[in-house]
Amino acid sequence: MSNLVTLKSEYRCFGGTVAYYTHQSQCCNSPMNFAVYLPPQTATQKVPVLYYLSGLTCTEENFTVKAGAQRYAAEYGIILVAPDTSPRQTGIPEEDDTWDIGSGAGFYVNATVNPWKKHYHMYDYVVHELPELITKVFPVKAEKQSIFGHSMGGHGALICALKNPDKYCSVSAFAPITAPMKCPWGQKAFKTYLGDDSSIYSHYDASELVRKHPLKYPILIDQGTADQFYEQQQLLPEIFQQACQQSGQELILRFQEGYDHSYFMIASFMADHIRFHAQVLGD
Amino acid sequence: MSNLVTLKSEYRCFGGTVAYYTHQSQCCNSPMNFAVYLPPQTATQKVPVLYYLSGLTCTEENFTVKAGAQRYAAEYGIILVAPDTSPRQTGIPEEDDTWDIGSGAGFYVNATVNPWKKHYHMYDYVVHELPELITKVFPVKAEKQSIFGHSMGGHGALICALKNPDKYCSVSAFAPITAPMKCPWGQKAFKTYLGDDSSIYSHYDASELVRKHPLKYPILIDQGTADQFYEQQQLLPEIFQQACQQSGQELILRFQEGYDHSYFMIASFMADHIRFHAQVLGD
Repeated sequence: MSNLVTLKSEYRCFGGTVAYYTHQSQCCNSPMNFAVYLPPQTATQKVPVLYYLSGLTCTEENFTVKAGAQRYAAEYGIILVAPDTSPRQTGIPEEDDTWDIGSGAGFYVNATVNPWKKHYHMYDYVVHELPELITKVFPVKAEKQSIFGHSMGGHGALICALKNPDKYCSVSAFAPITAPMKCPWGQKAFKTYLGDDSSIYSHYDASELVRKHPLKYPILIDQGTADQFYEQQQLLPEIFQQACQQSGQELILRFQEGYDHSYFMIASFMADHIRFHAQVLGD
Repeated sequence: MSNLVTLKSEYRCFGGTVAYYTHQSQCCNSPMNFAVYLPPQTATQKVPVLYYLSGLTCTEENFTVKAGAQRYAAEYGIILVAPDTSPRQTGIPEEDDTWDIGSGAGFYVNATVNPWKKHYHMYDYVVHELPELITKVFPVKAEKQSIFGHSMGGHGALICALKNPDKYCSVSAFAPITAPMKCPWGQKAFKTYLGDDSSIYSHYDASELVRKHPLKYPILIDQGTADQFYEQQQLLPEIFQQACQQSGQELILRFQEGYDHSYFMIASFMADHIRFHAQVLGD
């Protein structure tokens, strides 16, 4: 094992290995945690990699334990990487004050204002530093990477792909925050991490981004109709859908009757999402 | 919904429903919690039921969230029922003192000594009271039931089947405690719940039971070779294997290379176990 990362624990799983790591992040100026699933194919070859970004309050563990993704990653021969959702124990006094800001709530932006800007650079972390690290340490085909996520992490996956059309081969999301400038969670996070200059907010808003620069490939989104945060207008997939229609972005938006915001919903449609990515990554 | 149970929460999952319930148990003289997965087939018909008994420290939630079983239950049309591993908040002063006795550690026996005998009747609960309740409340084919479990719950599943050869159609286990009279966990639990008269211990020891009364159907057991509790001789599958050989019990004992005691192991072989049960239950 590389000395770039520290292995915390590992487990045999579907013929491959689930492992939890920590490393010193340069761009977050802090230790960062992530989980990796290496499918059995990595014993003999390099394989594609699929990044999963989690939602508010999650760590790298929720997806790893609850989503049931390893079975499909083993079937298709794809490495899964799930980073934590923020730096932790940074010393920022208010980092643990509320569940929707600070620890567990990095929102996949680069903070520009105090006290957050010293550590909260989750956008650079997931787009640049983490993939560079993963490519150095694990048997990854670096040019074959895709991204997906849930809720706040669905927002993260969408903006990472939309801002970097050549970096990812495909993107999908479960119940993503798709118009953060128009929902309470996003408005609070953007004001906290990016300050009062709202002109930069649109750089991190999937609906704003897709309206100007659609991707050449389709986007898959599953949204439960009984999702309390959909009902509370935190997710706003209709706004994203309208923006996609305006720019000609192909969108596969599926409303799943009766499903909520939980990992039971994510697990139910995990096979579809990994197959969606595998069709592109496996080329 | 029946007034026999109180619904705590429910979630759409693989076209069916995961739900958590509580009810007043007569035989445990206490509220008891359990989880149920209703597959989509139950919308129109009665289906078989598969009970899952969890291990030490678990609640009804671990299996429900981590095992990835709902996908297969939906595929085969089987109701899953996962009870909690003990009564809780009974008022017994020492119930929460240690992790291997009391709360989360009912051991699937009927306690005969104070202070436990007032509440800790987990054997009667899982064999009699819970199935009777499930049959009243859910669309179950009562004559089509099977049982499986993990670790302490694997012990539970084995003794339930061995002591009731006509009640269950099949039994399997992940890393079960198979000879509790010969391992520290079992010895401590039996002494605590059953007292000093060790003559009754053998009524709850799968290796002792199978030596005298083999089942007419095969038993499936998966055991990870990197399981720390296997290494610590808490599980002792070789003793169970020898007992099966003596009595002619058909045993499919699979040693899974490199797997440990975690739910990553359980999830990896869940498909095999549910298929094993479905082949019998679906007749």
